[in-house]
Amino acid sequence: LFFSFCFLLSLFFFLFLHINDGSSLESLQVVADPSLEKRDLTFGSAVEVQGKLVKSPHRMQNMELQAETIRVVGPCDIWSFPLKMKERHPLEYVRQFPHLRCRSNTLGALLRIRSEATAGIHSFFQDNGYVHIHTPIITSNDCEGAGELFQIGVKKTHFFSVPAFLTVSGQLHLEVMAGAFTHVFTFGPTFRAENSQSRRHLAEFYMVEAELSFTESLQDIMQVMEDLFKTVTSTVLSKCPHDVELFHKYIAPAQKGRLEQILKHKFMIISYSEAVEILKQAPQTFTFKPEWGCDLQTEHEKYLVKHCGEVPVFVVNYPYDLKPFYMRDNEDGPQHTVAAVDLLVPGVGELCGGSLREERLPFLKSRLQRLGLTDAYQWYLDLRKFGSVPHGGFGMGFERYLQYILGVDNIKDVIPFPRFSHSCLL
Amino acid sequence: LFFSFCFLLSLFFFLFLHINDGSSLESLQVVADPSLEKRDLTFGSAVEVQGKLVKSPHRMQNMELQAETIRVVGPCDIWSFPLKMKERHPLEYVRQFPHLRCRSNTLGALLRIRSEATAGIHSFFQDNGYVHIHTPIITSNDCEGAGELFQIGVKKTHFFSVPAFLTVSGQLHLEVMAGAFTHVFTFGPTFRAENSQSRRHLAEFYMVEAELSFTESLQDIMQVMEDLFKTVTSTVLSKCPHDVELFHKYIAPAQKGRLEQILKHKFMIISYSEAVEILKQAPQTFTFKPEWGCDLQTEHEKYLVKHCGEVPVFVVNYPYDLKPFYMRDNEDGPQHTVAAVDLLVPGVGELCGGSLREERLPFLKSRLQRLGLTDAYQWYLDLRKFGSVPHGGFGMGFERYLQYILGVDNIKDVIPFPRFSHSCLL
Repeated sequence: LFFSFCFLLSLFFFLFLHINDGSSLESLQVVADPSLEKRDLTFGSAVEVQGKLVKSPHRMQNMELQAETIRVVGPCDIWSFPLKMKERHPLEYVRQFPHLRCRSNTLGALLRIRSEATAGIHSFFQDNGYVHIHTPIITSNDCEGAGELFQIGVKKTHFFSVPAFLTVSGQLHLEVMAGAFTHVFTFGPTFRAENSQSRRHLAEFYMVEAELSFTESLQDIMQVMEDLFKTVTSTVLSKCPHDVELFHKYIAPAQKGRLEQILKHKFMIISYSEAVEILKQAPQTFTFKPEWGCDLQTEHEKYLVKHCGEVPVFVVNYPYDLKPFYMRDNEDGPQHTVAAVDLLVPGVGELCGGSLREERLPFLKSRLQRLGLTDAYQWYLDLRKFGSVPHGGFGMGFERYLQYILGVDNIKDVIPFPRFSHSCLL
Repeated sequence: LFFSFCFLLSLFFFLFLHINDGSSLESLQVVADPSLEKRDLTFGSAVEVQGKLVKSPHRMQNMELQAETIRVVGPCDIWSFPLKMKERHPLEYVRQFPHLRCRSNTLGALLRIRSEATAGIHSFFQDNGYVHIHTPIITSNDCEGAGELFQIGVKKTHFFSVPAFLTVSGQLHLEVMAGAFTHVFTFGPTFRAENSQSRRHLAEFYMVEAELSFTESLQDIMQVMEDLFKTVTSTVLSKCPHDVELFHKYIAPAQKGRLEQILKHKFMIISYSEAVEILKQAPQTFTFKPEWGCDLQTEHEKYLVKHCGEVPVFVVNYPYDLKPFYMRDNEDGPQHTVAAVDLLVPGVGELCGGSLREERLPFLKSRLQRLGLTDAYQWYLDLRKFGSVPHGGFGMGFERYLQYILGVDNIKDVIPFPRFSHSCLL
């Protein structure tokens, strides 16, 4: 007895149906006597088929179903149904139908991959002894100090007595937990009120974040980032080969075979200062002139990744003045840096960001004082007063990860329900 | 080489340290020569100990560490550190220190259990072929129609062009996905702007939600609810025996052994109408008089659970007029009901809620019309136009689940960072 969504129907001496229950890209072919045909047995309808599963005579499939009865459970009004039979709809087209696009092949494959990658991330951390923490969504902190926060209200009053915002990162809360469990991670939604229509930004997106106590080197952090990337990607490649193939065949043919290569080699590491030198010596001119002390722009990231051979590249030790208060002072000079790391990847740019955190009370205190933030972060200073340890961590943008491994150009196509400025459908 | 947080220190002819890295409730005992003592080697400090792991002569532990060197990585100001050595601090006390309470035994145990339960939930659904969906946090819908929504703003403008809210349930979005993948689940934060100081309510809490296509009976839904509960609880009991024991020993002694009993028996099922009859015949008087057509109050739920022997009880088929628009009409009468189910458990009350969804276009259309919601839910009606199938699902409150299995009275003590009215610490 097969309950399924009917995806394709063709006619000859036999009636052929392609039915699919969403568990894989491949449909099951149903062969039936034309007498079983019904008027409402159309593309997009839901059916119940009873019959015999037999070895298929065709090369393209292992099994087929010889139908004895076919019942249309839910008909489909094909004239107004926006998905059409045998058509490969562009991603931009199906994006207009957030309630139906999951029934297209591409989004179906994407969401299965997303589900496997999610499970893979949980397994990776669990297998390595990390405690999973649900860091809060509503918070009274602004971790990144970027100011691009969504505020929360109930009829204009402060429900929480203090201004409350949607979190931009679970890092500070993870640091609390790393003081009890040594290795912790979180994987949940984060928010940015950025008024951007970029193909790399969403107002609501998912981040994997990890925090490790008792580590004194960025190398340790980078090792976890690289292991996470490689382990989850291997899982996805082995669990969803056909779904991944769809992307590497139709969406990003250049990606084909690349990923397997990347998994075999160590990621590259260069320092921020080296990066600036590479950019200065570049034969091309940039819109933003590369200069020590300035942020790396998208055009710079692109060039660096190309320069290194279109592979993932860690850039380490960024200028002190560019980075948030919690990053660990390298105490170098005159080019003063912090122990920060970004992972740049082809096509996407920044995939991960991490750092050692400033665990030394006097350093942190004076930095917060200069920023006038001592009162707000008294609790954060407390963590350095009661058994502080060298520690560090990182965050990986989950949607950017999916964009990169699948070669999907627009971030709106790798999340079930994209939210961005001027759009919150459903 | 052991890096760890130092939890206890005592002195005799030997120096004894109890160190703990958060991976389990039990600490590792370190035995050292008194000459290794240092002034800042105190309770709460972080230490690095080098030495030999040997079989312990004591009955209470398997191994101990014979220290050769001890280094204090981070001292602890014990005078201002709110946690004291060898003290069992009440949960209310440690609640004041959201950034430090994870270092108490009770919260440590709780958060390890929470992490294992989280992994168990993901495994349960993955093992049963469900696709995991990240349903959105920000939404333009109000699934429950309860009106207790947090609104989101950026400097008083509509960032999304429409009013946007924090989700109260991922159900409607899961229904979209159940139309493509048959079985789907989500596990994420949900929000309620309820001005309540109740020990069972939070403004931000976690829900596990599942949706199943091609099901025509509440029985199927209840089976998944019961399997989920039993599988995850078994996992927790086998993976965290000592952590669970702490709760059943010190927090809720009455719970000891109960859980194992509950796992062995089928959950009970009664109808709403039967429940009302039981309440009417109760020898006690209620503040709210039990009456067919009225909501079950906490006092009623308590009595029903007690009446059934302090075990989990499914209550099915609630009055049509009590429930949201999406629940399936049972077309009975004169006591008109919908195919809804609540799971009541001792001490907590409602743990899960579920229903069959109205998959029939004319029924849904006329109900939405009467509520004046046709325009807002056009997309939801679409799902019934294009291959609609009988389906249903449920949600389980994750914090209430933890409260129940561990016997924790206050919901604020089973979540890392509780948010409720007038409180958003950190």
